[in-house]
Amino acid sequence: MVVERLLPQVEGGFPVHRVAGVPTQLDAILLKEGHVLVAGVVRWRPVSPEGPWQELPLSSLGNDRWRAEFIPPAPGLYEWTVEAWPRRFATWQDELRRKRTVTSALSGELGEGATLLEEIAARADASLAARLAEHARVLRQGGEPALDRALSPGLASDAEATPDRHLSSTARPVRLLASRPRAEEGAWYEFFPRSTGGPDQHGTFATAAALLPEIAAMGFDVVYLPPIHPIGRTGRKGRNNSPHAAPGDVGSPWAIGAEEGGHDAVHPQLGTLGDFAAFVAAARKSGLEIALDLTFQCSPDHPWIRTHPAWFQHRPDGTLKTAENPPKRYDDVVNFDWLGPDRAALWDALYEVTCTWVDRGVSLFRVDNPHTKPLPFWEWFLARFQREHPEVVFLSEAFTRPEIMYGLARRGFHQSYTYFTWRTGRDELRAYLEEISRPPVSDFFCGNLWPNTPDILPEHLQRGGPAAFRQRLALAALASPVYGIYAGYELCEARALHGEEYLDSEKYQLVHRPNERPGHIRHFVARLNALRRTHPALRSRNIQFLDTDSPFLLAWWRWDDARRDQVLVAVSLDPYAPHSAHVTLPAELLPPAGRRPVEAVDLMGGRRHLLTPGALDVSLSPESPVAAWAVTPPPRDEHAYEYFA
Amino acid sequence: MVVERLLPQVEGGFPVHRVAGVPTQLDAILLKEGHVLVAGVVRWRPVSPEGPWQELPLSSLGNDRWRAEFIPPAPGLYEWTVEAWPRRFATWQDELRRKRTVTSALSGELGEGATLLEEIAARADASLAARLAEHARVLRQGGEPALDRALSPGLASDAEATPDRHLSSTARPVRLLASRPRAEEGAWYEFFPRSTGGPDQHGTFATAAALLPEIAAMGFDVVYLPPIHPIGRTGRKGRNNSPHAAPGDVGSPWAIGAEEGGHDAVHPQLGTLGDFAAFVAAARKSGLEIALDLTFQCSPDHPWIRTHPAWFQHRPDGTLKTAENPPKRYDDVVNFDWLGPDRAALWDALYEVTCTWVDRGVSLFRVDNPHTKPLPFWEWFLARFQREHPEVVFLSEAFTRPEIMYGLARRGFHQSYTYFTWRTGRDELRAYLEEISRPPVSDFFCGNLWPNTPDILPEHLQRGGPAAFRQRLALAALASPVYGIYAGYELCEARALHGEEYLDSEKYQLVHRPNERPGHIRHFVARLNALRRTHPALRSRNIQFLDTDSPFLLAWWRWDDARRDQVLVAVSLDPYAPHSAHVTLPAELLPPAGRRPVEAVDLMGGRRHLLTPGALDVSLSPESPVAAWAVTPPPRDEHAYEYFA
Repeated sequence: MVVERLLPQVEGGFPVHRVAGVPTQLDAILLKEGHVLVAGVVRWRPVSPEGPWQELPLSSLGNDRWRAEFIPPAPGLYEWTVEAWPRRFATWQDELRRKRTVTSALSGELGEGATLLEEIAARADASLAARLAEHARVLRQGGEPALDRALSPGLASDAEATPDRHLSSTARPVRLLASRPRAEEGAWYEFFPRSTGGPDQHGTFATAAALLPEIAAMGFDVVYLPPIHPIGRTGRKGRNNSPHAAPGDVGSPWAIGAEEGGHDAVHPQLGTLGDFAAFVAAARKSGLEIALDLTFQCSPDHPWIRTHPAWFQHRPDGTLKTAENPPKRYDDVVNFDWLGPDRAALWDALYEVTCTWVDRGVSLFRVDNPHTKPLPFWEWFLARFQREHPEVVFLSEAFTRPEIMYGLARRGFHQSYTYFTWRTGRDELRAYLEEISRPPVSDFFCGNLWPNTPDILPEHLQRGGPAAFRQRLALAALASPVYGIYAGYELCEARALHGEEYLDSEKYQLVHRPNERPGHIRHFVARLNALRRTHPALRSRNIQFLDTDSPFLLAWWRWDDARRDQVLVAVSLDPYAPHSAHVTLPAELLPPAGRRPVEAVDLMGGRRHLLTPGALDVSLSPESPVAAWAVTPPPRDEHAYEYFA
Repeated sequence: MVVERLLPQVEGGFPVHRVAGVPTQLDAILLKEGHVLVAGVVRWRPVSPEGPWQELPLSSLGNDRWRAEFIPPAPGLYEWTVEAWPRRFATWQDELRRKRTVTSALSGELGEGATLLEEIAARADASLAARLAEHARVLRQGGEPALDRALSPGLASDAEATPDRHLSSTARPVRLLASRPRAEEGAWYEFFPRSTGGPDQHGTFATAAALLPEIAAMGFDVVYLPPIHPIGRTGRKGRNNSPHAAPGDVGSPWAIGAEEGGHDAVHPQLGTLGDFAAFVAAARKSGLEIALDLTFQCSPDHPWIRTHPAWFQHRPDGTLKTAENPPKRYDDVVNFDWLGPDRAALWDALYEVTCTWVDRGVSLFRVDNPHTKPLPFWEWFLARFQREHPEVVFLSEAFTRPEIMYGLARRGFHQSYTYFTWRTGRDELRAYLEEISRPPVSDFFCGNLWPNTPDILPEHLQRGGPAAFRQRLALAALASPVYGIYAGYELCEARALHGEEYLDSEKYQLVHRPNERPGHIRHFVARLNALRRTHPALRSRNIQFLDTDSPFLLAWWRWDDARRDQVLVAVSLDPYAPHSAHVTLPAELLPPAGRRPVEAVDLMGGRRHLLTPGALDVSLSPESPVAAWAVTPPPRDEHAYEYFA
């Protein structure tokens, strides 16, 4: 008996990512020579902390493939395998049944069966053993009564009451990481609490909390806060990334640590830990989760630099080594000595300080620059969270080097930033989104699509006006179960300093945003997030792109796992001109040719249509760059609806 | 330092299949946080018998991917891995070079460099250590001379003379099975030596040898012989699979063993072992290799049944259990007790008897029904051949159950029969041939395409006449580097008993074939095999199918690894009517739009054409069902050639 393959698996032995509470298919290829019938079970257990093995029945899919449905009961790391064994008695019975169709001269076979029953009886309890012995006696007597007994269901049930598991084989277990649903689904909104104080006023947790109902009203699930810790003074950056801060400049929140405290402290101007607790409570009231930035670096003023000098890199002359990306140097930031002699204490401290924030109500972390820290650190750090706080979700800011991005995901990051931010053409968007939404990548990687971030105001947003903002939002919000925008996006802020850098970037100064502003797209944001809330299809990872005959139109189809909800989306990629295109509809979506059409509800306009097989004509414009339809089975009276052109 | 992935690999840790002497690419993903420069080597060695580790340089392909070209020196099993390390000094020098573009205040950096050099010196020999100490001294003096020295190539070469391999990481080794070229390339011809004796005469090795020049003239590389051993008398089958043999009936050669001997003996009517040696010599003279059938079952008269009763399955009443496929029984065949108590001696005996035939000049084996024997047996058997006779090639007769077919290939079968025999539609042919010619399947599985076998005269050949025989031959011979036909194919023998069974099957009787017969396609066979000999593209595994707008026309493009030879093929799938189609030509084949066309030589007609971008019009008919062109770079005087329509 050979358990040949277990599926799904991730190359290199890393865990497959799945969602707790959601059914997932565990498959195995079971091979046994000849015509021997086989059976098997999935065996699974939680690891770290280790739990008892449990079993699930396997059903045959044909072609030697078997499947069990597994619902991870809770977030955490699991392992599973398949144990399979030959069904010796069932095989014998099956062969006997087929032979009896051509002959009754089967005494040799009956003798074999009797011997088999006696072997089984030797492993059975007394009452079963007695029944099996009686069956064997009847079989040995031969003739038609013996054949009838041999083929009886009662005998089969006695003989298989004790499966041949002493003949079983078990594959090497593979791992599965179950996360809570928020790990693979959600709309994120990033904002700087310090900017919420009104004109020229430093914001506080209280003023930030006042903004939460509005963010919730736009339909977001998560608010992501850049670092909220004390900011260093040494080497502080001025406005627009000036190397010298002017008096009153607030500095970059990523220069963490000052005499007021380090990673466990809050910036005094934002308030106290009590104020933060109130902010957490307000977020909960608005139905928002809090994601905090996790930046593992320090300002030269961080308390750890005095208390734990061995955690930092020094030059041979004893001076502290500041961060750099040659020829650039960052005088406001120093790096940890990740692999230095005191790394065990350092790693523990970073774990502990992260737990502090979990205890204070933070349930997600966006990790800054994880690719500049050693992969073995993340493997250790994330494994410990899987063990001790499996509900906490980590988003990796890995914009560069796709293999590092995937390497971080394999080590347990739940989500990652993506190259979506720079993909603009129809074919490159489609190819990239297909890559990350299908196995093997989707088995360990989940993309969180951001049209902008404080670091990236892409060129297409700088030039394309509100139409571009709507288009990029629709791509992110309707093509991915997880996406996010950085504050100001809904106001179509688009002024750059140079390259992709925002002018007067909030990274270095307070930015006051009036509540309303001409050309804002708050209602559009709210509409798309409302569609996501209403349609499970838009929160699932199932997506199929559709062929279009215009390079300016990207279209796709999404559905939920139960296939009760299906949504068709088309988005224009050109913010400057209207475009029309034929969208080829997938056969799976439509009834067989000649059958009745399916009903479609226009999600942007609310009208109902009937969708007929073939191609769908879509016209989009800079003013109306998105079309979406919910597709359901046809209604009884199909004449009540107009047809698509 | 992390060696993240090694490529190629086969799921489950089985070896990747490659050809000895042919360059293959070994890739690795090397990940190191930040901007650290890295280096690495491929380390490889033969296993079983184990050889010393050897190294190959890795070159960067960008995006953290590295590659080495490996040429397996000889057939056998290898393992390889990648060892990689950070280049600390080179990284320091690279950063210093970039920083110097903006500042000269680099004394801290120079101090770091000096310390690094002193560390390296501690691991260096005396003369290098002295030079490194002098470099360090100059660096510590600071100023422009120190910077010049720090960036000098001489210093780099001294500092990197001893790579940082004490900081290296090495991945878990993976395996690669190298075979001789014949494992993945060749035209096979199957015939029964006993049928070569002329009308009503039992053939001999001598009469069979007389046929070899003709087989060689048709362009075949391998002659495959069904079993040539003594045939049992007990339960012998008569003509057309009759359960009772008439006097004089020759029986099935697959009922191996009689009083004259078993698997190591030859059938007395075929001749002696000396006659077989003469046959082997004749085959060599004709440039043909010999493949022998390897059928691990016995007739009830096999000597082993007396000498080694424990090797066979018995019923509880002590009677021998004959082979069966319920409700069918095969009274002329008994099976081994593969997993019985005496299996070690049985497995050894089967290995030894196979080696006997290797010693007698057989270099390939076609293994009968391997899927009815345990996979662990094949794993053991083939591993021992890899170790002791890695030049011997095994073809698996696994027609059923795709997962078993692939499971056998993973365990070391070089080739396998395929489902090609039953694929007739354009799309199903294309999909199947794509599946087996691309990774992951092509990394461990090599299909040997047979349009017919003694067991299978497919329905399309029974009905389609010579046109169908030409079409199926062209599909097998021109779409696959390995293919074979069973004798009579070139004569278009097409009479069935029932189902796919030949009438008057050669499995149970002698079949005399006159040398010529109206409607034979010997010349067509010879022509296609000649094309295979002339064109390396047709012996490679590279294939890309081309879109056609007729469901009756399959077209593809093949090329050799060096891309010096390229062949376009189109085959009609309809033996009854002519068809025309547009074949979309791949961009890689054609020059950029507007550039000069490429020259194409019509391989079936010999005329030259110029191929222009776009679609190629192809017309095929039952009389002329195949078109093929060799495509080469354009000649100087392109006006000498006509254009395709």
